Amino acid sequence: MKILLKNARIIKMDDSPMLEGDILINGNKIEKIGKNIDEKGINQVINCEGNILLPGFKNAHAHTAMTFLRGGGEGLALQDWLFTYCFPREDKLTPNDVYCATKVGVVEYIQAGITASFDMYFFPIMIGKASEELGFRMVLQGMYNSYTDKKELIRLYNEYNSKENSFITYQVGVHAEYTLGDESKDNTLEVINELKIPFFTHISETEHEVKECYERHGVSPVKYFADKGFYDFGGAGYHCIFFSDDDIKIFKEKGVSIITCPGSNQYLNDGVCPVQKYLDNGFDVAIGTDGPASNYDLNMFLEMRILRENNPNIPAYEILKMATRNSALAMKLNNCDTLQEGKLADIIMLDSNLISDRIDIADSIVTNGNKDSVKMTMIDGKILYMNKKLLLNEDVSKMYEDCEKVKERINGEILC
Amino acid sequence: MKILLKNARIIKMDDSPMLEGDILINGNKIEKIGKNIDEKGINQVINCEGNILLPGFKNAHAHTAMTFLRGGGEGLALQDWLFTYCFPREDKLTPNDVYCATKVGVVEYIQAGITASFDMYFFPIMIGKASEELGFRMVLQGMYNSYTDKKELIRLYNEYNSKENSFITYQVGVHAEYTLGDESKDNTLEVINELKIPFFTHISETEHEVKECYERHGVSPVKYFADKGFYDFGGAGYHCIFFSDDDIKIFKEKGVSIITCPGSNQYLNDGVCPVQKYLDNGFDVAIGTDGPASNYDLNMFLEMRILRENNPNIPAYEILKMATRNSALAMKLNNCDTLQEGKLADIIMLDSNLISDRIDIADSIVTNGNKDSVKMTMIDGKILYMNKKLLLNEDVSKMYEDCEKVKERINGEILC
Repeated sequence: MKILLKNARIIKMDDSPMLEGDILINGNKIEKIGKNIDEKGINQVINCEGNILLPGFKNAHAHTAMTFLRGGGEGLALQDWLFTYCFPREDKLTPNDVYCATKVGVVEYIQAGITASFDMYFFPIMIGKASEELGFRMVLQGMYNSYTDKKELIRLYNEYNSKENSFITYQVGVHAEYTLGDESKDNTLEVINELKIPFFTHISETEHEVKECYERHGVSPVKYFADKGFYDFGGAGYHCIFFSDDDIKIFKEKGVSIITCPGSNQYLNDGVCPVQKYLDNGFDVAIGTDGPASNYDLNMFLEMRILRENNPNIPAYEILKMATRNSALAMKLNNCDTLQEGKLADIIMLDSNLISDRIDIADSIVTNGNKDSVKMTMIDGKILYMNKKLLLNEDVSKMYEDCEKVKERINGEILC
Repeated sequence: MKILLKNARIIKMDDSPMLEGDILINGNKIEKIGKNIDEKGINQVINCEGNILLPGFKNAHAHTAMTFLRGGGEGLALQDWLFTYCFPREDKLTPNDVYCATKVGVVEYIQAGITASFDMYFFPIMIGKASEELGFRMVLQGMYNSYTDKKELIRLYNEYNSKENSFITYQVGVHAEYTLGDESKDNTLEVINELKIPFFTHISETEHEVKECYERHGVSPVKYFADKGFYDFGGAGYHCIFFSDDDIKIFKEKGVSIITCPGSNQYLNDGVCPVQKYLDNGFDVAIGTDGPASNYDLNMFLEMRILRENNPNIPAYEILKMATRNSALAMKLNNCDTLQEGKLADIIMLDSNLISDRIDIADSIVTNGNKDSVKMTMIDGKILYMNKKLLLNEDVSKMYEDCEKVKERINGEILC
């Protein structure tokens, strides 16, 4: 299957200037980017009419299935929200619940121009299944637990990552220092050392968390994990709001990425991630929406606006890079970070009405863009969303009904 | 015509607790708010199914017709943006251009749950005409100029404001200190003194503006206008970013309102309005989107999120109040600020999926709401938008085409 996207404004996100031209997609990859590409032998020609082509947004941190927890526990600070609202409900989750609740989130990603997500949640295999069925690219965060012992973690890591460019890849991490038991800690570390792989976790999201870590271990969460060797092969931290200068130094030395979640941090009133400072220290910051329970609207445009409000001096192009290329790389997806010949065809089309004189096209996208601006979402060479219509083989209203049933059942069980 | 909105969660925005009940609309007014209102004699009964009823959002500062300038001049700071991008194009505007460009903005307001706007732009009569034809409530800012001399300004003020609860009302102001000629200044002041009316203008939006005013007049813009007597009958300032403590004192003493435009200030990188400080000084701050040229997305939900990012300690209810009640009052619309028996039926319905456990329903709206959450927009007792459908007697695609033609013609004239 060959698709030709013609007459577009192409922003490859590889720091090259915008190109007015065409992209030829062959199967799941970009075969050619250039001007006036020949239409011979093409199965489908789409005239982009000057609209913008961009690598899809990558959601570098999420708990997608939290759609079933959406719109609850507002006003609680992180610790209370987790321990009194989320955890008791999550205790009731079955694998099929996670499967249903993930589908709803993935459908919203596709409509919002998000083409991949890095998901930490229960029953990752079901998250992978839900995503793959919809043709969505998902990075699973495997964790040591009663379902997934050390051997299983290694087996899953090797299995999911053995296929090149597959929809589902697998990384290893833990939830956070403040929820980490000894068994999980030791086994996760062993897996990391055995496979020589990066490590992912929530870190320094609240002042409370950092203070408690000092009380427990006499060091910050960053130093705690680093001293034990968790970061010996890199990885990424989610949130990273309360970092000391030493923490920044450690992350820098170990090559650990920073993933910020502006909308969720606002929702939970965590504090504000010092993104400008991280950029000044040479980090390529990535962006995640976090789960829809702490950020109802899965919307990278909103994340970029909130991030910008606290960092008015970051150029728009850098913010756009965070939401696309940096996030892809933080998620260890190095084949869909930019639009390049040979890379995966994970492409979105944004309405050119956003721009008129192109003084700064990135600024147009960051300041003018909204979910309505997404005209097309293509993942792995397949068009999943076009002109406000989802092109899926599944019944989307049924997905919402199924998710609602999960929510109702679990709320019922909690109230009993 | 009697409409009954049944089974709703009603937030009146008068600081009373949320009410689960019904609202009866008779003609253009709210006749009754209560529980189990009798359906006898009602023309239309709408089951709100637990969704939220709220006074419509009021857009306290806008230049709605700037839809024709949308998506241009990005990256320019305010002064350059105005003088090199906006003003040359605005010079080419005809009254009919403003009429066409206003319609597009009004349609977007209705879809976004905005039920009234305070508009400063060329040819206000045409803005009023476009708005009234669509059944939208608009406050016009009249200005002294070659079309509207002193006598005409007084005539228009008296004419528009003579009818109680009409769609269109009229206030008087100027653009800003830095664009004010002597003739406009003297005549505007005379009108204000003669009619004893409030005064409205852009003020202290950039550091540059304040600095220049000091150079010109030896005082801040606030003191400049206050000393001359412009604020003797109150009014409001748009933007109000760079206020000294003395400026704050003057606004407070004169009873002048503060209208903030968070999205536009971000777009133009003006700086951040110190909203928390104004609240601490006892102001009821109002919110405007500003014109769509400096804020593509006419979206009060986005304004509330951006405002909150810099003011994490303002309770969500206060932010919601800014976007509804405070804005109405700053616009001198004191009959659609809250939901009360006898007040105008300017009501929006928001999706109850935003909330689940109602710890703080205002927080749910502010943090979870987006334009998709708007299920109904009613202005003056008429439903103009319901279940994602506009209920207007005009062809909306033609409006966009007409606006596009204005844009193309003017850009063509500029490039010649």
